[in-house]
Amino acid sequence: MRILVSNDDGIDSIGISILAKYLKEIGEVTVVAPQREQSAAGHSITMQVPLRVNKVFKNDELFGYAVTGTPADCIKMGIRNIMVTPPDIVVSGINNGSNAAINIIYSGTVSAAREAAIMDVPSLAFSVTNHTAKHYEYAAKLACRLVPLVLQKQNEIPVGTLLNVNVPDLPEEEIKGIKLTKQGKSKWDDIYEERTDPYGRKYYWLTGNLVEVDEELDNDHAAIKNNFVSITPIHFDLTDYPTFEKMRKWEIEHLLNNKESK
Amino acid sequence: MRILVSNDDGIDSIGISILAKYLKEIGEVTVVAPQREQSAAGHSITMQVPLRVNKVFKNDELFGYAVTGTPADCIKMGIRNIMVTPPDIVVSGINNGSNAAINIIYSGTVSAAREAAIMDVPSLAFSVTNHTAKHYEYAAKLACRLVPLVLQKQNEIPVGTLLNVNVPDLPEEEIKGIKLTKQGKSKWDDIYEERTDPYGRKYYWLTGNLVEVDEELDNDHAAIKNNFVSITPIHFDLTDYPTFEKMRKWEIEHLLNNKESK
Repeated sequence: MRILVSNDDGIDSIGISILAKYLKEIGEVTVVAPQREQSAAGHSITMQVPLRVNKVFKNDELFGYAVTGTPADCIKMGIRNIMVTPPDIVVSGINNGSNAAINIIYSGTVSAAREAAIMDVPSLAFSVTNHTAKHYEYAAKLACRLVPLVLQKQNEIPVGTLLNVNVPDLPEEEIKGIKLTKQGKSKWDDIYEERTDPYGRKYYWLTGNLVEVDEELDNDHAAIKNNFVSITPIHFDLTDYPTFEKMRKWEIEHLLNNKESK
Repeated sequence: MRILVSNDDGIDSIGISILAKYLKEIGEVTVVAPQREQSAAGHSITMQVPLRVNKVFKNDELFGYAVTGTPADCIKMGIRNIMVTPPDIVVSGINNGSNAAINIIYSGTVSAAREAAIMDVPSLAFSVTNHTAKHYEYAAKLACRLVPLVLQKQNEIPVGTLLNVNVPDLPEEEIKGIKLTKQGKSKWDDIYEERTDPYGRKYYWLTGNLVEVDEELDNDHAAIKNNFVSITPIHFDLTDYPTFEKMRKWEIEHLLNNKESK
């Protein structure tokens, strides 16, 4: 089994080291990850400048390939240029910090897994829900059990769908269980802190509080807040189908007083 | 009517100038756009470094505010810090190049509109389907007609849903009409061009071809390829609900041989 491992915290992060170490027990691992931290990179890709690829060694052994781009770049580069045979599965993480609810949209970790899904490769994203995470091992063990399960269940998970896994930052014995979840609706109440630089010029730093609106345990944020692992199937078809159906009745072309369709 | 205008091509692009000029006919326009081009920025936001905001003048008048960040940053900054009263609607564009099918995922233009949707503000994204677009005027005129329509129809477009509009790069008389569409499934067959720099080191530049798989005119890419304007309602709930329902039957906790839920 060939496993491509990436992340958004960068190739030197602890989370990707632990993930790669555990996954090597169950398959042949290739690490392709950003050279520098790319948190909140979203699904950006690099087109305006070229990319470089640098080998990274740990303990005198090849650990992986550092790409001077985004998480999505790493997956494209890993699959198209670095791996001789495409991977059977892509695993992204283990991220420092929750990637639940609205954070799914901003997350580089999830975007790496989503890029794999776009490229028809099964994938998973793993995050530990603390920006100064301490407990990666349980998430890594869970990856080793979920990877074969996802491959075995490919007839039930469509091409283009990935599993987004969030693990509470707790010792294994304090985790209450596993919940299948939906993307929650909690989102950020953004604040820009205004500061002044040494030259008297203003600058702004994004901060804010997560406004928690999800209480049911079948929502990702509520599950992890209650010390459950959250597993959410997500895809990249953004069409709002119910609104599409409503809008059919608008006859938008007439509303806009435009020429008829030919 | 207060309209916040942004884009991903940068505040100096032609598309945003034309869009702002037309929208000023129907409302009070505030332009907040990236200082530099941010194409394919996806939904990235800037957290690792602070942002600067610079006023931009055109013809000795304040044109807008340039933010040293991404399209999503511009919307957050515009709504939270720059506009005294929040906007009634956000319009992003007019982008150079199609944002249909898979490009919706990579697009900074769409992400600016999506960030507005996340912040509960109605929004639209406009793109002209050519990287060297020549015909922005029809898209700008369409914006002036769609903005009031979207505000009038807010009871039918849920909070969190935006309209993604793609306009063929043609003279108005050659456009065949308007189609309500779904996000198509066409995607890129990526290629990294390998080159060598003046110092003998390799670098890689992303290129590729769009593999066209959508033929029905209710798909965005097919509509624009057939010279129709495409309007797609999109949202940011990425949950794959059919797969969620299938996975319920897995009883994933038992499959993973984990402890029971408490």
